[in-house]
Amino acid sequence: MKILLIGVGLIGGSFSLALKKRNFQFAGLSRSEKTLDTAKERGIISKKFLNLEEAIAWTDWIILSIPVDAIKKMLPNILDQISDKQMVIDFGSTKAAICQVVKNHPRRNQFIAAHPIAGTEYSGPSAAFPDLYKGKRLIICEDELSKPEELATFLSIAIDVGFEITKMGAEEHDRHLAYISHLSHVTSYALSNTVLEKERNGEVILELSGSGFASTVRLAKSSPEMWCPIFIENKEMILESIDSYMEQMERLKNLIEAENETGLKTFLAEAREIRKILK
Amino acid sequence: MKILLIGVGLIGGSFSLALKKRNFQFAGLSRSEKTLDTAKERGIISKKFLNLEEAIAWTDWIILSIPVDAIKKMLPNILDQISDKQMVIDFGSTKAAICQVVKNHPRRNQFIAAHPIAGTEYSGPSAAFPDLYKGKRLIICEDELSKPEELATFLSIAIDVGFEITKMGAEEHDRHLAYISHLSHVTSYALSNTVLEKERNGEVILELSGSGFASTVRLAKSSPEMWCPIFIENKEMILESIDSYMEQMERLKNLIEAENETGLKTFLAEAREIRKILK
Repeated sequence: MKILLIGVGLIGGSFSLALKKRNFQFAGLSRSEKTLDTAKERGIISKKFLNLEEAIAWTDWIILSIPVDAIKKMLPNILDQISDKQMVIDFGSTKAAICQVVKNHPRRNQFIAAHPIAGTEYSGPSAAFPDLYKGKRLIICEDELSKPEELATFLSIAIDVGFEITKMGAEEHDRHLAYISHLSHVTSYALSNTVLEKERNGEVILELSGSGFASTVRLAKSSPEMWCPIFIENKEMILESIDSYMEQMERLKNLIEAENETGLKTFLAEAREIRKILK
Repeated sequence: MKILLIGVGLIGGSFSLALKKRNFQFAGLSRSEKTLDTAKERGIISKKFLNLEEAIAWTDWIILSIPVDAIKKMLPNILDQISDKQMVIDFGSTKAAICQVVKNHPRRNQFIAAHPIAGTEYSGPSAAFPDLYKGKRLIICEDELSKPEELATFLSIAIDVGFEITKMGAEEHDRHLAYISHLSHVTSYALSNTVLEKERNGEVILELSGSGFASTVRLAKSSPEMWCPIFIENKEMILESIDSYMEQMERLKNLIEAENETGLKTFLAEAREIRKILK
């Protein structure tokens, strides 16, 4: 089978590297030839395309692993161009807006909406590695709208990659992810700017930060090109999650201000319950 | 040399375990005999005390590694009781209030104010391990107020433990730490409660959280007994850091709300600069 990766970075690249043992042919399409060259050197793709039509003419399947705003723009256009046998899968971190844009497309059943819950703070083909998806979760949204046979084939490949599969609605996906993933990025970016603004001397940050700050601020290293579109695409849910978070911050701030030891200990003990879920 | 650990948990326990090869005798004092027994089993101490006077009569040096409010209460009382040759060191995470309480004590020069910048989200003697302090930083505050010879001896032991040493004022310490460490704990605790309140089903959190959420919320697993006193002792600086942080959150929220792509990318790119400091 021939698979075209539109986007050959951490997400698309790691998918290909995890499938080294299978006899798939991977090609890459990107605006940047340099990125394609790096992907080729790293063994992510064996063929490169700079032209979409040529790439579509070559491939069986297409995987979109580019920023979510770019997916939203390209997807309908790609579905317009493919033949009956081809399939398109997207790996975007938001799902409602993407599903919405192809909702009434005559080839909607040749599209699979997927989200691999994995990543690091790094990006690009040189950040890709074969084990990224081992034991991680792949969310499939609106699975009932994709061709059942092709979906089954894709899921069996995904399981080979190391994924565990969960199916859910696109809106439900975006609401959960706003709280569980996107909000963590928002708070890390804000924490980073707070500390950088106060501590203009990087030496002091380096000297005084234990592993705690490094862990809490880690996601602020994530790519703005990827995260800016996620924040905008999932705006409503993310704003809701920010409001809930600001309420908790206000509560905590008031408890500290009042030196309310009992209330403070209760707040911290409640938060600490997360340890029963995340070991 | 005989060293009395008041508090035999992660912080005090790891200090002892790191010094296994030296011929020190470690004893522990705690309100909980069970904790002392665990510390003895783990090789942290060879002797246990439940009575402060007996423990002081036995030891050369005393290390306080208990919550900062308890340090503030016990320290003047301990200085009252020691003889000319004994030294007291505290390992608390805030320094100004502790230094203030013994500022005019006649035995002030028998006290060393120290803060090991290391830790994990776990606590108690079973969380202690010998390499906790390897390559980590030890802050010494108001070093000019401690007996120079005894301070030199302590620093040479600290270097053996693996520490790098930085000296700074107590107020300066508390201001930096508020931003670089305490604020990370505040934001993690608030993030945890936001997600736990929204997602009452732990299964969903576990399924949908990649390593990003786990990393950002990790500090919320920290001990409320340790962190509640830190928040109260360093209240002023922490409230200031929370206000700066809330301003950044507001800025980021407004950029998302306005779908201001340019402003948003600039905000994220600025935050991403942290990668140049923390690799």
